[in-house]
Amino acid sequence: MEKLSRYQQLIDARIERTLFEGKPASLYDPLNYLMGLGGKRLRPMLTLIACDMMHGDINKALPPALGLEVFHNYTLMHDDIMDQAPLRRGQATVHEKWNTPTAILAGDLMLVKAYESLMKSEGIARIKILELFNKTATEICEGQQFDMEFESMDEVAVEDYLKMIELKTAVLLGCSLKVGALVAEAPESDADLLYDFGIYTGIGFQLMDDILDVFGDTEKVGKQVAGDIISDKKTFLLLEAFRLANDAQRAELNKWIGNPKAEPSEKVTAVKAIYDELGIQDIARAKADEYFKKADRLLEAVNVEEARKKNLRDYAVFLKNRIS
Amino acid sequence: MEKLSRYQQLIDARIERTLFEGKPASLYDPLNYLMGLGGKRLRPMLTLIACDMMHGDINKALPPALGLEVFHNYTLMHDDIMDQAPLRRGQATVHEKWNTPTAILAGDLMLVKAYESLMKSEGIARIKILELFNKTATEICEGQQFDMEFESMDEVAVEDYLKMIELKTAVLLGCSLKVGALVAEAPESDADLLYDFGIYTGIGFQLMDDILDVFGDTEKVGKQVAGDIISDKKTFLLLEAFRLANDAQRAELNKWIGNPKAEPSEKVTAVKAIYDELGIQDIARAKADEYFKKADRLLEAVNVEEARKKNLRDYAVFLKNRIS
Repeated sequence: MEKLSRYQQLIDARIERTLFEGKPASLYDPLNYLMGLGGKRLRPMLTLIACDMMHGDINKALPPALGLEVFHNYTLMHDDIMDQAPLRRGQATVHEKWNTPTAILAGDLMLVKAYESLMKSEGIARIKILELFNKTATEICEGQQFDMEFESMDEVAVEDYLKMIELKTAVLLGCSLKVGALVAEAPESDADLLYDFGIYTGIGFQLMDDILDVFGDTEKVGKQVAGDIISDKKTFLLLEAFRLANDAQRAELNKWIGNPKAEPSEKVTAVKAIYDELGIQDIARAKADEYFKKADRLLEAVNVEEARKKNLRDYAVFLKNRIS
Repeated sequence: MEKLSRYQQLIDARIERTLFEGKPASLYDPLNYLMGLGGKRLRPMLTLIACDMMHGDINKALPPALGLEVFHNYTLMHDDIMDQAPLRRGQATVHEKWNTPTAILAGDLMLVKAYESLMKSEGIARIKILELFNKTATEICEGQQFDMEFESMDEVAVEDYLKMIELKTAVLLGCSLKVGALVAEAPESDADLLYDFGIYTGIGFQLMDDILDVFGDTEKVGKQVAGDIISDKKTFLLLEAFRLANDAQRAELNKWIGNPKAEPSEKVTAVKAIYDELGIQDIARAKADEYFKKADRLLEAVNVEEARKKNLRDYAVFLKNRIS
């Protein structure tokens, strides 16, 4: 874990040093504000870990790693407008603190700055990284649009939900790992294995997140328990519950879900009761484990000494412990 | 002019052929809708003209030229949200026809698609084009933010207005020309002269636009005459009028500008009367000419046979006749 702390320090220091400067200040301040709100910096961590694993020079991986973090923050800035979210990491969102036009434009600038940073890689890796990034950014837009579409749909298939979270969140983890492997000039086959490791791990994490929202303890989660239930979010849990419910259970779910008059705590209690009857938590945990196991097998197949894989394994465990 | 028509056909055909495809349709439809609304396709025209002028292969210039048009349309999609504009080229804007979240996200995707297309250039030109584009896109964000800031400011200096229109519109014309020169692998010094030609011509065009809004004939302009006066837009004309006004004229201007109760046609008549007293139209035309003359001198300095410069000169004249 010693190396992991060192990476984290490197990334945090780099982000602190990277102030976006330009005029007018009202355009640049939101970028520095959002980047300064912190976070795990998961994506650049994955880039550095993968680069080092594949015998690369992590100093060369730092600029594109930073680009991926900037990109992630741009998606947060625009998603928060679309979701009309008032808070991000416990602080006012950019569109709340400034205004929506500024948040749109500052987000746009942030996407350009992400490209700028991703271009600071070298040699043949540079074009490959940019091509992968174009594909990834496209998929993330698709995932976000699917997510918004699902809100107004009566029925969503579990497979469509899984595809949506793959696009919306998992592909960026896969991309982050592959960028590290590309900087290290690793063979394409290993880079792809790491990409897929990121995809499966990402879906697994999202499923854990869904579980945690309903069954986690408030203090650890740091947000309202079962917010997903209250807001009728079509998570894996809810979709599975609808799929497995008998007529009585389905009627009960329909009584609460999509009912704006439902009293929140009663609604949570009632829906959780059905989740318990159907064993939804165990099903979701088993599903997440399935993804994590697939990810493990992909990592095993990467053609590099076993010892070099330890960092990524440790980091995945560290993240799982944080959220589960 | 024969070559110019051929370029225009090439570009129009290429854009018609380039359908953005993917899922969900609600994300991709807005891209095709906006691109299909037409327009002069000024920016790709400039890229092709510059490429050909500098002995380049225009087929190689087509993908980045298309990227610049896609980029321009992305800025329109997001600007229309920020300006709450209901119409674009006489049709409903994307945020009106769909909704704001979709217009934000479709615009984001369009920026990614612009990069994708710009990357389809070859060899050493590719990285230079991307670097120039990052700089240009950054400046356009800055220009748009300045433009929005000016709306709520009491006083704006003429120089600041000129800088704003340089950033918001002229740099993309300079960039479009330079991209063509880069594809042709022209010497850096000539590419830079063409870039500056684009800057000066772009500022000149914007000044002509400002004049036309107030003094043009309705039919030719295709929009409400003097919309800039009605909406208190701080154009070159208004800023010059405030700068040159005597106390009585300034008092009269202040009576109308920023007064939400003013009757529109009375306001236009009154403000135009002051413009006439101060000779604002002539001043603005002289200023635009100054920029066009600077542009001419830059084009003269480009190190290529005079005959090869004819297309660009013809095109600039064609555009000037369209707007003046």
